[in-house]
Amino acid sequence: MTDALKQRVFEANMALPAYGLVTFTWGNVSGIDRKRGLVVIKPSGVEYEKMQATDMVVVNLRGEVVEGRYRPSSDTATHLELYARFPELGGIVHTHSTHATSWAQAGVAIPALGTTHADYFAGEIPCTRPLSRHEVNGEYELETGKVIAAALTGIDPLHMPGILVAQHGPFCWGATPEQAVHNAVVLEEVAKMAWITGSIRRNQTPMDDYLMHKHFSRKHGPDAYYGQK
Amino acid sequence: MTDALKQRVFEANMALPAYGLVTFTWGNVSGIDRKRGLVVIKPSGVEYEKMQATDMVVVNLRGEVVEGRYRPSSDTATHLELYARFPELGGIVHTHSTHATSWAQAGVAIPALGTTHADYFAGEIPCTRPLSRHEVNGEYELETGKVIAAALTGIDPLHMPGILVAQHGPFCWGATPEQAVHNAVVLEEVAKMAWITGSIRRNQTPMDDYLMHKHFSRKHGPDAYYGQK
Amino acid sequence: MTDALKQRVFEANMALPAYGLVTFTWGNVSGIDRKRGLVVIKPSGVEYEKMQATDMVVVNLRGEVVEGRYRPSSDTATHLELYARFPELGGIVHTHSTHATSWAQAGVAIPALGTTHADYFAGEIPCTRPLSRHEVNGEYELETGKVIAAALTGIDPLHMPGILVAQHGPFCWGATPEQAVHNAVVLEEVAKMAWITGSIRRNQTPMDDYLMHKHFSRKHGPDAYYGQK
Amino acid sequence: MTDALKQRVFEANMALPAYGLVTFTWGNVSGIDRKRGLVVIKPSGVEYEKMQATDMVVVNLRGEVVEGRYRPSSDTATHLELYARFPELGGIVHTHSTHATSWAQAGVAIPALGTTHADYFAGEIPCTRPLSRHEVNGEYELETGKVIAAALTGIDPLHMPGILVAQHGPFCWGATPEQAVHNAVVLEEVAKMAWITGSIRRNQTPMDDYLMHKHFSRKHGPDAYYGQK
Repeated sequence: MTDALKQRVFEANMALPAYGLVTFTWGNVSGIDRKRGLVVIKPSGVEYEKMQATDMVVVNLRGEVVEGRYRPSSDTATHLELYARFPELGGIVHTHSTHATSWAQAGVAIPALGTTHADYFAGEIPCTRPLSRHEVNGEYELETGKVIAAALTGIDPLHMPGILVAQHGPFCWGATPEQAVHNAVVLEEVAKMAWITGSIRRNQTPMDDYLMHKHFSRKHGPDAYYGQK
Repeated sequence: MTDALKQRVFEANMALPAYGLVTFTWGNVSGIDRKRGLVVIKPSGVEYEKMQATDMVVVNLRGEVVEGRYRPSSDTATHLELYARFPELGGIVHTHSTHATSWAQAGVAIPALGTTHADYFAGEIPCTRPLSRHEVNGEYELETGKVIAAALTGIDPLHMPGILVAQHGPFCWGATPEQAVHNAVVLEEVAKMAWITGSIRRNQTPMDDYLMHKHFSRKHGPDAYYGQK
Repeated sequence: MTDALKQRVFEANMALPAYGLVTFTWGNVSGIDRKRGLVVIKPSGVEYEKMQATDMVVVNLRGEVVEGRYRPSSDTATHLELYARFPELGGIVHTHSTHATSWAQAGVAIPALGTTHADYFAGEIPCTRPLSRHEVNGEYELETGKVIAAALTGIDPLHMPGILVAQHGPFCWGATPEQAVHNAVVLEEVAKMAWITGSIRRNQTPMDDYLMHKHFSRKHGPDAYYGQK
Repeated sequence: MTDALKQRVFEANMALPAYGLVTFTWGNVSGIDRKRGLVVIKPSGVEYEKMQATDMVVVNLRGEVVEGRYRPSSDTATHLELYARFPELGGIVHTHSTHATSWAQAGVAIPALGTTHADYFAGEIPCTRPLSRHEVNGEYELETGKVIAAALTGIDPLHMPGILVAQHGPFCWGATPEQAVHNAVVLEEVAKMAWITGSIRRNQTPMDDYLMHKHFSRKHGPDAYYGQK
């Protein structure tokens, strides 16, 4: 079973450069096997061109390496914190994709401006508060996970499958590693469009809330009618 | 005859990712056989990489599936409304292409700023009004078609072969599915240039109307002299 | 001899889509054989994917087709006017490349902001005045050539191997068709950088004139020392 | 030994077009063999498509050609000055990459806005002062090296592995030619993100200094824990 998840997480990682979301090794995907309490994640700093499925690292929920010859991603503690807080999550992605990272650097939430956004994100995409000096100098990656979780208070994470970490970049997630990558692609495209929209018309107001809910529910939930049954 | 149209509509759909106009499944093309009263359209939510000509869905003018194992595009009612209103149309395209969608999100018509625009669009490219809550919560896709038609009042649709739906994205059309796709490519490029132009010079005035008419008529109508006879 | 020039002009035309300078058929290259008084130019509206060297059209200096089964580019009269005015020119290119066209639509000359610009263009790249209604409705393409020539008054065209036609797009040239294409690539990149520079710092002042002359003369004229002897 | 360095410098040069950092011949990489006092550098103005490892030029520290049939890059004196000033450097890259050059043209240092920047550059990326008329008309390339060195006063060059030369473009470096190219890729991406960030939020304040130091030291120095041991 771990082999199957390693293969899936490997393929999800390889999708990041294929979709143009990462430069060099600036990204990682993980997946979780909730029954066995194991997380599979990209090894730290290994080049995509040379990476193989067998290089994926398996850690337990305390972050201890259970299987694999490499160190896990330096962001592993962030992933684990998010899995612990949100049982809905099956996969998590972190990238420094150009446009989402630019919004994170600006420290501004991405407003919901159109149906492309609303098809996946049921509201504006939050930007976390900056981490404090104490948090950065302490268990930095764990604190990053906590700050993300705080920004999601009261929000269903599958209705808001991504966030911006201020001064850093995006994290996305989904019910599976594949959906997490899918959402990372959407976030990058939505971030690009929101930048251009704001350049055409400064401070454009958000879309109508009834249109936003209509589009989100076209693709999600009991009344969804997009796609095949 | 339906097989031939299915092949053409299939190829027109496959041109969308080839031209960089769609991410994932965010687009659809249809074509109409006016004599038989049948419309061929992309199935809903099917991935381009796996799609085949035989997957195209045939519907009648009431939107009932006549042929095909898939559900038709969720935007089918919009296409049907446009075919009903405008007998000149032989093909329709909907995408979420980056720059055209950004103008739609800004809710701003694309001004005619140069000959690239005027070669295809005889004036500024309109943006519809936002749909009302009632329209969105009712027959949403049908109402979208009605709002587009309203924005085209008094305009020859082949002189204005595309439009922006506010808070949503572009629809384009033409005498054939192939021309509709061609116009979608042009709209995206014109939208990109208009954004950059506005960034170089805020609130640039539109081009001279006599230059606009000259260029449109170089390529269209009885006095056209661009291309081969 | 015409065959050799047809081959060169064909290859120069094919370089336009390869360099990303044209969408569909929106561009053309010509070359001149000054001894024989013949100009070879792209046929009008023929798709690049299907075009062959034997499709190039040969016209004399009055614009009459001397050889070839197609109509010449609709912009032929502009090319001929420029060849007549400037004996230094051996090749001419017209495109609607994205960033150069955006400056033309803004009606703003591209300021000399850095050495990339100065390596090829010895000063700001002019934008013509808009054509008058009379000029547009008369011999439009010929008048376009005249307006370009007027904007180059007192300028060595090989020191300023390109220009923006207001509300339209760029024309570039050189001693050969190959150099004309080279300059069209440079103009597009310089236009892109100037747009971004202006977005980082509004109304940036032009570069120091002594740096501009230094760089231009590093690559051009008797004191050039860039490249191989 | 020179053959091995020629091969490495050749491959580092070929990486520039592969990463989209150069148009035509607008870039060069060098590497130094400190023991033998030799620098290997790209020949001036030779096209990448035709270049071979044996075309690399070997010069001594006075800039005299020791080996090779071509003239060295016209920027050789800049490289030599930087190698002389900074014994830490093993490789140097110069490009006219789009976004870094745009910041150089704007004459503005790139502020540290996020962790992507901080992972490689321990502070804002400086922009030099413009060269004086006297410097440009004198030993221009040598003076360029001196102006870069002056802007790095008090800075560890491996903590700030790149700089913008005002009105010109970026120079980057590293302990090896490969690392220099790596840093040139990072600089271009950081420059692009900083431009977009500034467009989303004008005059965004720099990132927190403690976050910057945290990220730089995650990848550099005795406490680094990114990547494999």
